[in-house]
Amino acid sequence: MAENGRSVMSGNYQVVGTRPIRHDGTDKVVGAARYAADQNVPGMLYGKYLRSPHAHARILSIDTSKAEALPGVTAIVTSSDLAEAADKIQEMGEDAVNLRYLSANMLAHDKVLYHGHAIAAVAANSVHVAEEAVGLIDVEYEVLKPVLDVREAMADDAPILLEELRTTALGEVGDKSTNVAQHFRHARGDLEAGYEAADAIVEREFTTAMVHQGYLEPQASTVQWRSDDQIHIWTSTQGPFQIRDSVSALLQVPVSQVKVTPAEIGGGFGGKFTPYTDLPAALLSRKSGNRPVKMALTRTEVLQATGPTSGSYIKVKMGASKDGRITAVEADLIYEAGAYPGSPVGAGAGVILSPYKLDNLRIDGYDVVVNRPQSGAYRAPGGTNAAFASETVIDELAEILEIDPLEFRHINAAQAGDRRPDGPEYKRIGYKETVEAAIDHPHTAIPNEGTNRGRGVASGFWFNGAGPSSVTAVVNADGTVNLLEGSADIGGTRASAAMMLAETIGLAAEDINPQVVDTDSIGYTGGTGGSSVTHKIGVTTHQLGLELRRKMSEQLADYWEMDLSDITWQNGQFSGNGHSLGFKEAAQELSSGYEALTASVTMNTEGAGPCFGTHIVDVEVDPETGKVEILRYTAVQDVGKAIHPSYVEGQIQGGVVQGIGWALNEEYIYDDEGHLLNASLLDYRMPTALDLPMIESVLVEVANPDHPFGVRGVGEVPIVPPAGAIANAIYDAIGVRPTELPMSPARLLEAIWEKNGA
Amino acid sequence: MAENGRSVMSGNYQVVGTRPIRHDGTDKVVGAARYAADQNVPGMLYGKYLRSPHAHARILSIDTSKAEALPGVTAIVTSSDLAEAADKIQEMGEDAVNLRYLSANMLAHDKVLYHGHAIAAVAANSVHVAEEAVGLIDVEYEVLKPVLDVREAMADDAPILLEELRTTALGEVGDKSTNVAQHFRHARGDLEAGYEAADAIVEREFTTAMVHQGYLEPQASTVQWRSDDQIHIWTSTQGPFQIRDSVSALLQVPVSQVKVTPAEIGGGFGGKFTPYTDLPAALLSRKSGNRPVKMALTRTEVLQATGPTSGSYIKVKMGASKDGRITAVEADLIYEAGAYPGSPVGAGAGVILSPYKLDNLRIDGYDVVVNRPQSGAYRAPGGTNAAFASETVIDELAEILEIDPLEFRHINAAQAGDRRPDGPEYKRIGYKETVEAAIDHPHTAIPNEGTNRGRGVASGFWFNGAGPSSVTAVVNADGTVNLLEGSADIGGTRASAAMMLAETIGLAAEDINPQVVDTDSIGYTGGTGGSSVTHKIGVTTHQLGLELRRKMSEQLADYWEMDLSDITWQNGQFSGNGHSLGFKEAAQELSSGYEALTASVTMNTEGAGPCFGTHIVDVEVDPETGKVEILRYTAVQDVGKAIHPSYVEGQIQGGVVQGIGWALNEEYIYDDEGHLLNASLLDYRMPTALDLPMIESVLVEVANPDHPFGVRGVGEVPIVPPAGAIANAIYDAIGVRPTELPMSPARLLEAIWEKNGA
Repeated sequence: MAENGRSVMSGNYQVVGTRPIRHDGTDKVVGAARYAADQNVPGMLYGKYLRSPHAHARILSIDTSKAEALPGVTAIVTSSDLAEAADKIQEMGEDAVNLRYLSANMLAHDKVLYHGHAIAAVAANSVHVAEEAVGLIDVEYEVLKPVLDVREAMADDAPILLEELRTTALGEVGDKSTNVAQHFRHARGDLEAGYEAADAIVEREFTTAMVHQGYLEPQASTVQWRSDDQIHIWTSTQGPFQIRDSVSALLQVPVSQVKVTPAEIGGGFGGKFTPYTDLPAALLSRKSGNRPVKMALTRTEVLQATGPTSGSYIKVKMGASKDGRITAVEADLIYEAGAYPGSPVGAGAGVILSPYKLDNLRIDGYDVVVNRPQSGAYRAPGGTNAAFASETVIDELAEILEIDPLEFRHINAAQAGDRRPDGPEYKRIGYKETVEAAIDHPHTAIPNEGTNRGRGVASGFWFNGAGPSSVTAVVNADGTVNLLEGSADIGGTRASAAMMLAETIGLAAEDINPQVVDTDSIGYTGGTGGSSVTHKIGVTTHQLGLELRRKMSEQLADYWEMDLSDITWQNGQFSGNGHSLGFKEAAQELSSGYEALTASVTMNTEGAGPCFGTHIVDVEVDPETGKVEILRYTAVQDVGKAIHPSYVEGQIQGGVVQGIGWALNEEYIYDDEGHLLNASLLDYRMPTALDLPMIESVLVEVANPDHPFGVRGVGEVPIVPPAGAIANAIYDAIGVRPTELPMSPARLLEAIWEKNGA
Repeated sequence: MAENGRSVMSGNYQVVGTRPIRHDGTDKVVGAARYAADQNVPGMLYGKYLRSPHAHARILSIDTSKAEALPGVTAIVTSSDLAEAADKIQEMGEDAVNLRYLSANMLAHDKVLYHGHAIAAVAANSVHVAEEAVGLIDVEYEVLKPVLDVREAMADDAPILLEELRTTALGEVGDKSTNVAQHFRHARGDLEAGYEAADAIVEREFTTAMVHQGYLEPQASTVQWRSDDQIHIWTSTQGPFQIRDSVSALLQVPVSQVKVTPAEIGGGFGGKFTPYTDLPAALLSRKSGNRPVKMALTRTEVLQATGPTSGSYIKVKMGASKDGRITAVEADLIYEAGAYPGSPVGAGAGVILSPYKLDNLRIDGYDVVVNRPQSGAYRAPGGTNAAFASETVIDELAEILEIDPLEFRHINAAQAGDRRPDGPEYKRIGYKETVEAAIDHPHTAIPNEGTNRGRGVASGFWFNGAGPSSVTAVVNADGTVNLLEGSADIGGTRASAAMMLAETIGLAAEDINPQVVDTDSIGYTGGTGGSSVTHKIGVTTHQLGLELRRKMSEQLADYWEMDLSDITWQNGQFSGNGHSLGFKEAAQELSSGYEALTASVTMNTEGAGPCFGTHIVDVEVDPETGKVEILRYTAVQDVGKAIHPSYVEGQIQGGVVQGIGWALNEEYIYDDEGHLLNASLLDYRMPTALDLPMIESVLVEVANPDHPFGVRGVGEVPIVPPAGAIANAIYDAIGVRPTELPMSPARLLEAIWEKNGA
């Protein structure tokens, strides 16, 4: 266990667990780092989108003639420019259904399905000309009635977004069009028996609002469709290979025709895997005589038309016995998919009860299309709203049974050998240790006393991911090592990858020069998401280090004139024949007589370790305004092993802050016609440093047995508990149990008034 | 043997020896390729040099105050900005003598040694401000007498350029300062006996002018010395790693602090290994608050102050017996080093007689400093002038002995087992085959009849190089392969490397996507020079292909559930267990279930095969003007194996054209004070397509036994024979033996008048 990042279970590492300055730090501090919108190339044009003013409408005609005639306009594209590829995708059938939807989301085919849905894009020799041309495109619409709420969308007479959806129940297909894209269930045990064994049962309904990742840097890219049909994309993305795959699939060109160079990235949080600007810019470049086209979204476009995460309706029913055991639980999760299928309800159903050992359960999930932007991944997708529901119900049960809420969680904590609600069996996990650390923490020892003050706790789970990762090392004559990686660096990947390689070959972190390269220069690498990167790049850089050690040993065996098998590696030194050299010194000494060492490792990594967190929050509620102030916040988390504790702490703090925003303020506000009313950061209210106390991160280290350094992904789980913890704290403060997110002043006041019988 | 690129000895190759469109072809044809001067980055400044108006002077003071005060000027650098590094270099002693000279050549320390020698550099927010500021720098000089001719420079009372030079003879060191930087000798056998055995002896003296490579793209680079002390250089270079090494050494910073990204390159021919713009731009960037600085030379600067090749004085004495055997030969080569030691006289002495088997010989070489720009490498450095001398003398001997000049060469041709004049023993070489191919060629069968018309032949040799090369392969899901290389592509390296990899793994050339990457992204790779690249990258890409095949076999063994050892590779197919797949199909089939393949190979390659050429040229001389017209030109060359015959032919044609320019027109013209009078392409006369007939390339293929595809370097040897062949043709046409290069109209007229007793 560790507090404030001081690792207690530090092992015998020289580099892992320390806090070197990140390699890209100076660039970012002095403003020299180049983001996607900084890309400027000779002959560059500027692209702008035309977007739908309607939430639901049929496109009857698009007349671009006036816009085309505007001097300076070089190209206009609509879905007709995707038609040939779309036909091929259509022929691929059910396998390509998501691709079909993605295509229609990039440039609306026959219908617009949300306010801001892209219809056309213009390239011109200046942004201003492009904007003017957008205004000259005439679109004739047949406006349709929109539906924005999932329960309304499931009603029999609801307006239908996609005629082809025919889901009835649990994956069956009926005759009638519906807005339900998917329905699934996880179930086990005997619910009836479970409820019978219960001494208390709580059933509650919750609603949560659609929220956005709120990355500071809007999507931007520059694309050149060259005259040899090679498409080069410079873009802001979490997944350069995913952008390559998407663009390749949407255009139906081979992947080898697409090269993606990731720029520095100003935040992603799951929102930067979709080619919002890459695809139209590619089409515009092709149509503009192969000139490069830059497209950068405005903040309004980001909020209107990129992929926020789902609002939801969730019902939880839970029974527990006097000894604090959960005996039965049911949950129904209905998530807004947005315009096309694909909400994170599956992940939400995986998160909602996973910290706990449960014998009798049923979880139903529904993915429902509504006239909102297509939802996208957002940090532990679907987890925060799910845990808000379950952790509130647990708090209520604990209260009824008069058991301390942390103790209640400790009693029910899942451990190695227990099965997750959605099936898989846990290996060694550290959930129980997070609850124990929370119980033992000084925060718990000091009560949050005072009127309208309260404390809440909540726990959270995230799966964590693994997958393909590719790294290449190039050893310089001065013994330093260039490390090439395919993972975009959004949270310190350069630093952590460099540290794990440095640890393996006995160098200092500063001796490694990590860089994120383009998709032509490195093997296929999964995206920077799902809290997968430190896991997968740890496995591959460790392997890379072993490979470098092997190759260096071979050269040393020749140099020292001895058998390879007699060379040993210990404490960062190669030894043999009475000689001893570190890796760096060996590289320097052999630099003139031997070839420079290079190595490349590509693996499809497995063995990600799940991650748990338990949060404690103190609040004060102003009963006059409904405003909630966060007084103190402690986030305990099992991180497996913190490679660079500062960035782990930063990840936890960032996740908590986003969770607080989701809990208290953030929401998409639509009018009845489906117009988004708050598409600016002035009206879409995210918390700032001034709104919050210092978030305290407590690192528990229960090593992941399937990682060379014991790493577990850390970035996502911290966003899961905050809403539940804050709801519980509010209840503790004022006796009102919030059931809606955000718990904004207006909503809380309503609840307070209701409680007071006003 | 092959004619017009039709390979006779084609082997059983599918890709090697064919003529696919080069991968970078479209970009270059449509003007999309980005050269160094196309680099534009935000916040960029512009650098300009102040250069010496004197050929030889002591710098008494430099006053930059007026220039610094000019609005828009961000930095001015002089040699004082290199002083700290220079002190360290000084401490390194004799090992770093060339580095000390390089430093002084980049920014003159205490003396300027040639007209155009760089003294200071200015960075400003526009080129115009920078130019104006250059004019505001006050330099006080003590003007010294210059010396421009090597024989004058060797005189006892010659002005001395570098006080520390003390060479007397054959490497010995005396007390007195001299301009002779080096004197060496190759000798064997018994010269006296050799002359005694001769039936004819010819002794002649020759002088040749300093000439420039004439690359179309002037040196240009953009450099950012970032605030974390990482120096990033985008530049036009043949050797990104050599630029990295030079800049690192000149600044005395570790190599890992310098990253060089090579741009496309508009010609180099040996002239783009020196950091003319890289070094000052780096210093200016550091002094300008870490902003990037672009420097691009003007054509005048290129001619005045980059590294042309040496003018020379050469004396050859040769005896031969009636049966056509060369019995003894002596040569003295005195080469202009330019301002600092380092002429290619060593290479010249290696080239001058290497086609021939010689028992009795003496070759003396002298490297002499003069007040001209520091000489640099130029295509087969020192070879053209050397062969001009020897091949003219051979022609005269053949004439005296009444032996056909090709027959004379055939009699004396060196073969495997014979020793080169400078020592090494030949393995299998193809010189004799080039003479035979010339004898058999239709060109030889048809006489060049008519008044003032004549034919000449000459042969040439070049060593060819090998050395370090690094390549990385990344296999895409569609079965195509990205190939990363460290060799700058000046003559089709992307194409040839791609073809050799394609051949090895059974793909089409188009399935390989080759790219030249920066120095951080690939292992140490020698420069694109010395005709080394196709050799070394052939060895490494072949190895890389074998590695990919091995890895693919491993995956297939798993996929086909069989032993690795039972998988066979034949005719481009993996086979086993009744299955059969090509590499591409295998990659596609395994793309979802197996990791993407990557591999990296770095080797210090050896085994370059020497190369020989024999040229036939027909001329017509206008006796009224002295102008020589080239009527027909046939260049026969042993190329080992032509990977892409079109580019081999192109290399030969290009070399011949440069040799013709050197032979007939090109020269540095100085006045008595050492001012260069013809520093523009209008006055420095290079041949254009309009001046020349189609050059016919004949490819002889005598495989290099030390290369997987039999490659020999091809780029340099074709520049060696032209001057000698043309001189011999002129003699055949008008009975005058030219002994000076260039054989320009003025010089030829003088010779004609002299012959006619005018």
